[in-house]
Amino acid sequence: VVEIDWTLEAAEKGGFPHYMLKEIYEQPWVLENTLGGRLKEEEGDVELGLGLDPLAIDRIHVIACGTAAYAGWYGKYLLEALARIPTEWDVASEYRYRDPVVDERTLAIAISQSGETIDTLEGIREAKAKGARTLGVINAKGSSITREVEDVLYIHAGPEIGVASTKAYIAMLSAMAMLAIHFGRRRRILGKEEAQGLLKEMRKLPRLVEEVLEKRPLIAHLAEKYHQAQDFLFLGRHVQAPTAYEGALKLKEISYIHAEAYPAGEMKHGPIALIDEHLPVVVLATRGPLYEKTLSNIQEVRARGGKVIAIATEGDGEIGKLAQDVFPVPEVHPLLAPIVSVVPLQLLAYEIAVLLGRDVDQPRNLAKSVTVE
Amino acid sequence: VVEIDWTLEAAEKGGFPHYMLKEIYEQPWVLENTLGGRLKEEEGDVELGLGLDPLAIDRIHVIACGTAAYAGWYGKYLLEALARIPTEWDVASEYRYRDPVVDERTLAIAISQSGETIDTLEGIREAKAKGARTLGVINAKGSSITREVEDVLYIHAGPEIGVASTKAYIAMLSAMAMLAIHFGRRRRILGKEEAQGLLKEMRKLPRLVEEVLEKRPLIAHLAEKYHQAQDFLFLGRHVQAPTAYEGALKLKEISYIHAEAYPAGEMKHGPIALIDEHLPVVVLATRGPLYEKTLSNIQEVRARGGKVIAIATEGDGEIGKLAQDVFPVPEVHPLLAPIVSVVPLQLLAYEIAVLLGRDVDQPRNLAKSVTVE
Repeated sequence: VVEIDWTLEAAEKGGFPHYMLKEIYEQPWVLENTLGGRLKEEEGDVELGLGLDPLAIDRIHVIACGTAAYAGWYGKYLLEALARIPTEWDVASEYRYRDPVVDERTLAIAISQSGETIDTLEGIREAKAKGARTLGVINAKGSSITREVEDVLYIHAGPEIGVASTKAYIAMLSAMAMLAIHFGRRRRILGKEEAQGLLKEMRKLPRLVEEVLEKRPLIAHLAEKYHQAQDFLFLGRHVQAPTAYEGALKLKEISYIHAEAYPAGEMKHGPIALIDEHLPVVVLATRGPLYEKTLSNIQEVRARGGKVIAIATEGDGEIGKLAQDVFPVPEVHPLLAPIVSVVPLQLLAYEIAVLLGRDVDQPRNLAKSVTVE
Repeated sequence: VVEIDWTLEAAEKGGFPHYMLKEIYEQPWVLENTLGGRLKEEEGDVELGLGLDPLAIDRIHVIACGTAAYAGWYGKYLLEALARIPTEWDVASEYRYRDPVVDERTLAIAISQSGETIDTLEGIREAKAKGARTLGVINAKGSSITREVEDVLYIHAGPEIGVASTKAYIAMLSAMAMLAIHFGRRRRILGKEEAQGLLKEMRKLPRLVEEVLEKRPLIAHLAEKYHQAQDFLFLGRHVQAPTAYEGALKLKEISYIHAEAYPAGEMKHGPIALIDEHLPVVVLATRGPLYEKTLSNIQEVRARGGKVIAIATEGDGEIGKLAQDVFPVPEVHPLLAPIVSVVPLQLLAYEIAVLLGRDVDQPRNLAKSVTVE
């Protein structure tokens, strides 16, 4: 693990017009740092330095707010897929007040960039008081949550200044993926070879994100085309559902466009009524087991006159026939696709906000770290 | 239980301009019918005629789509609060494809008005194949889901013709509340007296909904005031979070206004950036343990220039100082408040859609029962 100096210098914009853009561009380096010495491809394992006994857990509660909550949702999918531990994610403001059912075989995981988010802190305290084991997935060292939990998995994303979180999000996703592999291996659910396959793919992530960043001009073109839309819809299935929610959240936060996300298969149960030629629909349609189902959803949008911007796997020859616009992302294991696919959505939010003349790094009404209820 | 004839006559509009309005007005009667002979106030119990052993269950998965999914979310809160059974709800299109962790001590509950919703049907099949016990909370007798599950709790709402579900929703909420009481009593979590208190409150529900319906002119006034808004935000906490989501869904479905809901405490983590004087915010602010927290959220909205329409408890003298508009609903047990509070939201969606000249009973792009993926 490369130790980061949280100095003023590191916090400067380094030639970028905004902290947010600088932080988006830091993501390949952040991934190197998060994954760092933790991936052990030969053993098909990860080394996280956690004291926690993976066999002492029957279920997991992930507690977080905002962007971190979507990382928790992603984590749920991976923890269930790779370690078969029933996992529930919830926004902390709900979790802390709903008297959750917790016992001493529950692991409560708090995810927070700052480690100071008050609802998340109080949520983990609530779980702890009920007897849960506790783990923090945190960026800021020595922060309040790190002092409250038994174990910390640092995401090592470096200081994040832009109010809209970007690099901390992909670091959180990577951390949750490593955690799922760790639990899966210890619980003998995940075989060595399957783990090796995943780790090999994870090792590629910094380079793949770099490749996406090189295609920024294509995003600038899409932003030019769509920045006057009043509303956006973001759709995705399975691990790409949280990606859709995070994409909509970014756009909302910094452009003030009303962007909403839905699991793609749920669109028919309501939001499809909103669809007309004025509503751009961003669809996460990378290759994976649900690719065909997602194509059907794109067809449903098109049949109602909607405009589709598809985030698709490079070399997909079919999707261009259905979507008005396609942003190609490099191929990677479907469970890791969100780490690559969220990058164009971050850039899209950024470029649109700049075109609309918004204050990207200090959007109205928002605070970087929400330390009041 | 009064048996309902599913005849053409019952399906007629009975003097109302739309099926939806007729169905909204049927709700007091529907509640009588759903609760019917099932409430046993003297024993502090309910009689649901289920074969299922409440002690053979360690966790519950609720599977549903659209409006029914929000009834499932409400059910989660009640099943955890009254019976302490860890309960997860999920939209069926996600559940069926995510290889959920299920064992023979999992109860899978499918909620569906039609009993034909394909994703819900396939979701319950998936759970069953993995060994789960199964229960349907269903309106239409003899429908596909009723034939797939071990047990059925019929909601007895009568035929629902309007595409936007109203009476089936409050019947589903009541059914989930009864189910939670049933499990809570059998598992000796819920005491007789507490159950009696809840049942007494449930017995009042038809009359309380009647009282809300009498205040339709106030809703018509609010619709007149706000129907030109491009966007709406709906907020609520705990059991009123699903109410907020259902209110936003109704408005979306029949008015095509982009309405979005959020758990009120999560607003600060994104949607607060959208708030300005053009965005009406509907806040579920009925009395209960989270009333004060919800008032703070209203203050946050007001501080950013937002316009607040509060659904508040009758006689609340404080809230009128904070919210621009207040719709008072009769007081009831906080866990049952959603059954009363959703009614003004149904009426608001209806009145706005009529003012905008929408086809209320046949909104564009939507089908009553979604039998394709």
